[in-house]
Amino acid sequence: MRAARFHAQKDVRIEDIPEPVTQPGTAKIKVAWCGICGTDLHEYLEGPIFIPAPGHPHPLAGEEPPVTLGHEFSGTVVEIGDGVDDLDVGDNVVVEPYFTCGECAQCLAGNYHLCVKMGFIGLAGGGGGLSEAIVVKRQWIHKIGDIPLDEAALIEPLSVGHHAVTRSGAKPGDVALIGGAGPIGLLTAAVLKGLGVTTIISELSEARKAKALSSGVADHVLDPSSEDVPTRVLELTGGVGADVAFECAGVDVVLDTLLTALKPTGVLVNVSIWGHRATVDMQKLVLKEIDLRGTIAYVRDHEAVIKLVQDGKIDLKPFITGRIDLADLITQGFDTLIHHNDTAVKILVHP
Amino acid sequence: MRAARFHAQKDVRIEDIPEPVTQPGTAKIKVAWCGICGTDLHEYLEGPIFIPAPGHPHPLAGEEPPVTLGHEFSGTVVEIGDGVDDLDVGDNVVVEPYFTCGECAQCLAGNYHLCVKMGFIGLAGGGGGLSEAIVVKRQWIHKIGDIPLDEAALIEPLSVGHHAVTRSGAKPGDVALIGGAGPIGLLTAAVLKGLGVTTIISELSEARKAKALSSGVADHVLDPSSEDVPTRVLELTGGVGADVAFECAGVDVVLDTLLTALKPTGVLVNVSIWGHRATVDMQKLVLKEIDLRGTIAYVRDHEAVIKLVQDGKIDLKPFITGRIDLADLITQGFDTLIHHNDTAVKILVHP
Repeated sequence: MRAARFHAQKDVRIEDIPEPVTQPGTAKIKVAWCGICGTDLHEYLEGPIFIPAPGHPHPLAGEEPPVTLGHEFSGTVVEIGDGVDDLDVGDNVVVEPYFTCGECAQCLAGNYHLCVKMGFIGLAGGGGGLSEAIVVKRQWIHKIGDIPLDEAALIEPLSVGHHAVTRSGAKPGDVALIGGAGPIGLLTAAVLKGLGVTTIISELSEARKAKALSSGVADHVLDPSSEDVPTRVLELTGGVGADVAFECAGVDVVLDTLLTALKPTGVLVNVSIWGHRATVDMQKLVLKEIDLRGTIAYVRDHEAVIKLVQDGKIDLKPFITGRIDLADLITQGFDTLIHHNDTAVKILVHP
Repeated sequence: MRAARFHAQKDVRIEDIPEPVTQPGTAKIKVAWCGICGTDLHEYLEGPIFIPAPGHPHPLAGEEPPVTLGHEFSGTVVEIGDGVDDLDVGDNVVVEPYFTCGECAQCLAGNYHLCVKMGFIGLAGGGGGLSEAIVVKRQWIHKIGDIPLDEAALIEPLSVGHHAVTRSGAKPGDVALIGGAGPIGLLTAAVLKGLGVTTIISELSEARKAKALSSGVADHVLDPSSEDVPTRVLELTGGVGADVAFECAGVDVVLDTLLTALKPTGVLVNVSIWGHRATVDMQKLVLKEIDLRGTIAYVRDHEAVIKLVQDGKIDLKPFITGRIDLADLITQGFDTLIHHNDTAVKILVHP
């Protein structure tokens, strides 16, 4: 079967590899669509990062490069392993793409996303969504009912946003300020809107501002190049400030703006991955008793996310900005996202 | 009566001023002891900071310099205003030294320490503990029973530590790492010990390390100049990491060490006041889903703190390192703390 495999930095090849074999306790999934994640781009440009280094196989996946890429995917069950009695051939599903040890303190506490040996399917090994088929343990497979398979490929990044929102403690009726309208900022806003939170997005790019409005996930869009964002947030909240904020840019001035625009006792969740150390005005954190919280991936979020989409609370169609064949992964996928990253939100790959 | 009054930066004078007059709803307190706070030093060296600037009287206190200093004090009720029926002349008391508006969103939510107009008695106006007597509204007066008056002067800074611990969510049996053993670091550790938390203090100064051990507030003292603190914390916690941490130094490398030494899902409370923007490795916050929380002053902490001292859970005597007369405030108080700040913990002033 065809698969996109990471061999080394800037060396991702579309190759023919053997089909994976269904094992007891697993199911084989024919992949329908797989989204390209920012993480995939980082691996392509600067990796291996989450991908194991050559000679250092992942402790749970047991693999080293070449590894198959792709962790944002949907598909259909085509074969079921022994001992799996709650899946049927033909079920449409998505995968929560984890390797976890099940034994460390965090796994035992239910925080499997913080497992000391945690790895991602599609990065650490175990095959990936950028191939025709994959075999996955039952525990990581979630049925999606009648959600269209193309939209379902976005359930993984939407779960990242959902977990960030859970970390914030945002409640219906709250006001959230989101700094940055890239894919994760937009999907975080989508979750917030789906839960009844008022959303204010701060974003510089014209294309991203337009998408935030046209997709319906932003109640208000502010441009920090022409408006004072904290002043506008105070106006929009009757002088109170935002209840929660989400850093989705990885930029110092964005972080500082969010700290300023939050109300006292507000919560700021950092969703972005930073390429440098942040400078933080601790006095704002102190004098308003703000909580700055880290968030990573997802834990028990998929079922809630699937329900939000099934109930029509979140419309994922506006975020699909491209559909390509696996053969065109580099030229029409990676290169487009690298060079036109403000117009492209999510490009789906059909293997 | 004698009072220490802030006129301007490096201009604090011991002057004779009229005794304050008891009003309805207040009580007059003869001051026994008043501690010198780091904030007083900052006002002396760099102020006015919390003290109103000349020509800009505090909105609630209605005062501008000169103002009487001192907000860490104990004393005895000597006169009771009309309408106060739950205090007796002769009661020993401490004061929670606030001005709050009672009307803003935070006051109405019970977060009076985050009041938009909040000021401190002894800084914003209203007299201070560095004088012979003070008149205070009943709501801010807390009876201390048989706690000795000298130790009681430390209940205010101890309440700062108590509120920081409350913000951390630390539970009995947890392990706390405290970065910095200055007065607030030591008193935060004292609260933690009093609540049944294991304490590890990281500190460079020999004198402060010795005090952390001799006062009994540190179960373990680590020296970051000779040991790798995160490695030692892992050893002391069976490979888990600290449950909670407290930044009591205002130093970038301390903050980073605490982030490294915390377990996943750990909580880091910033207690210190920073003179510069902190540099923060957000990846540590993200990958371990750490909460970095600001804390300021106290809110409904005094009664719990008084009970901890009354129950013998906290011994404040080791932290009283000097007793001086008000006349010697500058020479034996401020100057000692400025030039010998690692041996002096709390200097008490008798007015």
